[in-house]
Amino acid sequence: LARKLILIIADAGLELVPKELWKHPSVYKNAERRGKKPWQVLLDVSLHYSAMRSLERKEKRGRPDITHMCLLEALSSPSNLSGSLEVYVHTVEGKIICLDPKVRLPRNYNRFVGLMEQLLERGKVPPSSSKPLLKISDKGLKELVTDLNPSRVLILSEKGKLIRFGDLTRVLASEGKPLAIVGGFQAGDFSKEVTSLGGDFISIYPKPLDAWAVVSRVLTAYEYSSRII
Amino acid sequence: LARKLILIIADAGLELVPKELWKHPSVYKNAERRGKKPWQVLLDVSLHYSAMRSLERKEKRGRPDITHMCLLEALSSPSNLSGSLEVYVHTVEGKIICLDPKVRLPRNYNRFVGLMEQLLERGKVPPSSSKPLLKISDKGLKELVTDLNPSRVLILSEKGKLIRFGDLTRVLASEGKPLAIVGGFQAGDFSKEVTSLGGDFISIYPKPLDAWAVVSRVLTAYEYSSRII
Repeated sequence: LARKLILIIADAGLELVPKELWKHPSVYKNAERRGKKPWQVLLDVSLHYSAMRSLERKEKRGRPDITHMCLLEALSSPSNLSGSLEVYVHTVEGKIICLDPKVRLPRNYNRFVGLMEQLLERGKVPPSSSKPLLKISDKGLKELVTDLNPSRVLILSEKGKLIRFGDLTRVLASEGKPLAIVGGFQAGDFSKEVTSLGGDFISIYPKPLDAWAVVSRVLTAYEYSSRII
Repeated sequence: LARKLILIIADAGLELVPKELWKHPSVYKNAERRGKKPWQVLLDVSLHYSAMRSLERKEKRGRPDITHMCLLEALSSPSNLSGSLEVYVHTVEGKIICLDPKVRLPRNYNRFVGLMEQLLERGKVPPSSSKPLLKISDKGLKELVTDLNPSRVLILSEKGKLIRFGDLTRVLASEGKPLAIVGGFQAGDFSKEVTSLGGDFISIYPKPLDAWAVVSRVLTAYEYSSRII
């Protein structure tokens, strides 16, 4: 069997508006304008900033744009086009999203938001398919990683040990089925759920990087090490 | 002086709605809903699909999302964070957008659209600044490239000569001020304006890639070759 890279976008700020914000004017007015109920709408700091002020862990929530960017990077990558990538999203609520490698995600952000709303409300997309392109797994993160049985777990973190790109390609070349975990949030630390997986914390640049810049560099290192590019 | 990479997103599908579509119902209704006139609104195929049916070169137009993705990749890259990158956008109308390397573009697509509308209408952002973060240049593409005086021009194209990632890093390492041109459109060929620049057409993967996947791989090759990562 061919080698594979597994990518998990972890602690992603992707969730429906939580109950405590349903009655906030900025939330229900916005939902109404789209013909939706507050609990059918994705939490988005660009729309719900004032409502989110008192929300706990707010620096990690309401950022579907980060997941969108990371997924477009991953699904459009030579790793994925060559059939060498598996991608999952682990959300801030602990949900696991499984993606068919062949799914063509909307490039347009507003359409992506609509799709994620359908997914989080109905559990899969298309909702009536027995082979959905996107689905919420019954598993938690720990169980998913145990089942995937990666040869090594790399957690990309600005607080990790700095590794040069050339060394990263050599590490990836020596692994049969490495798992790379990239945080799908703006600021703050990984959750206990992630840190308790027991991976190696690595950093690819001395300054903090946006999640999509990390995703593309890890995938590029994998592609170079596997002679995909 | 330090080495630099110049990146131009060329023939980008980024323009205000052209005159021939101002009276189309899908255009003016949509503009009205946002409190704008049709000529103040960015052309976007996800909103103006039916209006665009009879538009010439339509496969290259109305895709601000591609430019958004490419610019977020470029501005968040280690190349840019280390001061080694200059980025320009050349639009399908032939306009040149100059970006301050320190600009923090909106991550949210709808806010990016608002910013580009302001830029294309007023010529700079902020409109009253003498040192704008974004501005439309008086130059055309040919003049810009002549003034930049790159040591080599690489045009990334699926029809170009296939080059391995390792060879690309060696090419970039040997150049003092290379210019990489990536197409900011969905389908079709580069305009004569671009092809007449006389660069080397190269391809980094045997299949067509989305523009942002090309941007991130070229920048990563440059960063690796310059020991930025």
